[in-house]
Amino acid sequence: MPDFSSFIREIPDYPKPGILFKDITPLLGNSTAFHGVVDEFALRYKHEAIDVVAGIDARGFIFGTALACRFSVGFVPIRKKGKLPYDTHEVTYDLEYGSDTLEIHQDAFPKGSKVLLCDDLLATGGTLSASVDLIEKLGGHIVSIAILIELTELHGREKIPSYDIFSLIKY
Amino acid sequence: MPDFSSFIREIPDYPKPGILFKDITPLLGNSTAFHGVVDEFALRYKHEAIDVVAGIDARGFIFGTALACRFSVGFVPIRKKGKLPYDTHEVTYDLEYGSDTLEIHQDAFPKGSKVLLCDDLLATGGTLSASVDLIEKLGGHIVSIAILIELTELHGREKIPSYDIFSLIKY
Repeated sequence: MPDFSSFIREIPDYPKPGILFKDITPLLGNSTAFHGVVDEFALRYKHEAIDVVAGIDARGFIFGTALACRFSVGFVPIRKKGKLPYDTHEVTYDLEYGSDTLEIHQDAFPKGSKVLLCDDLLATGGTLSASVDLIEKLGGHIVSIAILIELTELHGREKIPSYDIFSLIKY
Repeated sequence: MPDFSSFIREIPDYPKPGILFKDITPLLGNSTAFHGVVDEFALRYKHEAIDVVAGIDARGFIFGTALACRFSVGFVPIRKKGKLPYDTHEVTYDLEYGSDTLEIHQDAFPKGSKVLLCDDLLATGGTLSASVDLIEKLGGHIVSIAILIELTELHGREKIPSYDIFSLIKY
């Protein structure tokens, strides 16, 4: 596998002091790196039956759409509160300070659908865990969770231990 | 061309009274409709030289990524203020009440790049006009602007009259 991490730019003290932010825009902007990442995900799931791909607002839309295109299936956005106009389910989860809420349309996919969930980053796992809950509220079956970057020291995957998580870049 | 408008759900009084919101999620979730839209865009641009696709936060990421994948080029996110971690250019534009600011990374693409700009909706044109300004600040050449839905009564394309705008669904 190519060294995709060489296309991730580290930004010190963003968005606040002490955080070393992983900037994925150099990877997205490089056609070889971006489509190489999509190739690796597609290879990982080529024998899986996938009915729909869900991506988390907003960078998860990028990898989610790319995989929905690769597998020729529909795409479902999981969005921050107040962005989806129709009837939604919502899940609120704790952040370091305060909380956040994610929503999914109640008719996003039929019950029993096989869903591939995508996001750019697995940190503490709060966002992913809430997204898993939303998909299961609709009766979806999570085939796997595709992540570009996993911050392993934060042990985010322990929040959702019973799911397959495939991350391409680990720190 | 298929009748893509049958996959757009109209939501009355969203996000505020008097607005008839165009919900694109039924289209995204239907594999035939979603990839049919991407096919139509790809057909329209198949003879154009495109170096990079730019998409506007957040629904523009969906169509922008799909086209970046189709043309095997990089993807550049144009984001709401405060979301891009590196050095940015920014443009502020007027809304009905107040203003909004969009940003692009200063190193998003090399000067002289041929850029396809994507978004889901052309309404009054403020967002698109600001995005055009951002691309040109970097010395990009805008090949065309690909839009899913154009609200023609709002005359948004008159804000950017010297650019090619291709919209698939017109109201």
